[in-house]
Amino acid sequence: MSLVRVHNLAVSLDGFATGADQRLDAPFGHAGMRLMEWFKDSATWASLQGHDAPETPDDAFARRSFEGIGVEIMGAGKFGPPGWQDDAGWRGWWGEEPPFRTPVIVLTHRPREPLVLGETTFHFRTASPAEALAEAQAMAGGLDVRLGGGPATVRAFLAEDLVDLLHVVVVPIVLGRGGSLWQGLEGLEERFTVEAVSTPSGVTHLTFARRSTHALARAIP
Amino acid sequence: MSLVRVHNLAVSLDGFATGADQRLDAPFGHAGMRLMEWFKDSATWASLQGHDAPETPDDAFARRSFEGIGVEIMGAGKFGPPGWQDDAGWRGWWGEEPPFRTPVIVLTHRPREPLVLGETTFHFRTASPAEALAEAQAMAGGLDVRLGGGPATVRAFLAEDLVDLLHVVVVPIVLGRGGSLWQGLEGLEERFTVEAVSTPSGVTHLTFARRSTHALARAIP
Repeated sequence: MSLVRVHNLAVSLDGFATGADQRLDAPFGHAGMRLMEWFKDSATWASLQGHDAPETPDDAFARRSFEGIGVEIMGAGKFGPPGWQDDAGWRGWWGEEPPFRTPVIVLTHRPREPLVLGETTFHFRTASPAEALAEAQAMAGGLDVRLGGGPATVRAFLAEDLVDLLHVVVVPIVLGRGGSLWQGLEGLEERFTVEAVSTPSGVTHLTFARRSTHALARAIP
Repeated sequence: MSLVRVHNLAVSLDGFATGADQRLDAPFGHAGMRLMEWFKDSATWASLQGHDAPETPDDAFARRSFEGIGVEIMGAGKFGPPGWQDDAGWRGWWGEEPPFRTPVIVLTHRPREPLVLGETTFHFRTASPAEALAEAQAMAGGLDVRLGGGPATVRAFLAEDLVDLLHVVVVPIVLGRGGSLWQGLEGLEERFTVEAVSTPSGVTHLTFARRSTHALARAIP
């Protein structure tokens, strides 16, 4: 059974998972890197950069994002700054060896030809959440699908109840404006069991596990 | 030194500390008691009701609200449902022995005569946060001042940097609408050190300690 998982999605106390005014030199907008400091201090991040670093309690959560994933789905806003569709030469933020190393489906209203970078192939699609998910699961070879963000894309999948596991990292900052994760999702918690674990970095890891997924898993002998 | 402290202020993931549509029979509006379930399961709450109950990890935080307090300041919305000022007989939500047992300053644009109920006296004032605080500290006999909420009142004091300790309880629910705690407080964390502790009830206790208060305390020999 191929699950849909969200990992390492950091959100401020006022519910923003990106800042406002995202630009080429500010992928998180006015939030800067404040939502991701806990991650940049992790061994998981160091490992992605080819370095070693001591494990932190946050690593127990951070590393799960890279385990058992066959495909990533991301929104257009994760692939590039506003307007990247006008730049035929835009190849994403990640250089010549992006950290995905799987197929990636980029949801955009202006699809283009697939882009192969190292071990990652980006496929550009205009698709509903359900359509994108069907294609991703077909590509995933039995592994899980990572829903990579940003917040509008995660919200759209949550609204259609397509997410099995949602790992949110509450960072104790007030951003004031930006991309809301929770808007339109009143009562979301009723569909999930929720566990909270705070760590010395000051963040809190919330794991939302979809109740119907668990019920199904229990029913399989 | 008399500190200004906020305790047990529960807030949803989307930053609401009350629901919408507060009424006489729904003090938290459409949120019901969902923000306060962790508290209603505590020994601290049971004790206020004259009962015994086992201590929970949340009690380590909950009970602090009742230690070393000389006066409470509350907003009009905590004293009664919208329109209570039109009801000369309204005496608050708490019956004949309210749990404060200190003077309480109720901020309202329509003051009335003081109300004595058991060991609590309510004083009704039209005052700015700084004015209310000066009066409260004069009444507090060297003890601390509890800022009792609701969210608009806490926001107003935070905006003027009048809060020394802010204990917020993040409850993993999405309310969608209601009274925002964080609105207008972008960058609040810069003035505070913040610690996070999650407990088995699923909530996370955030303690914001004002940096300038700490610096002052360290300077006292």
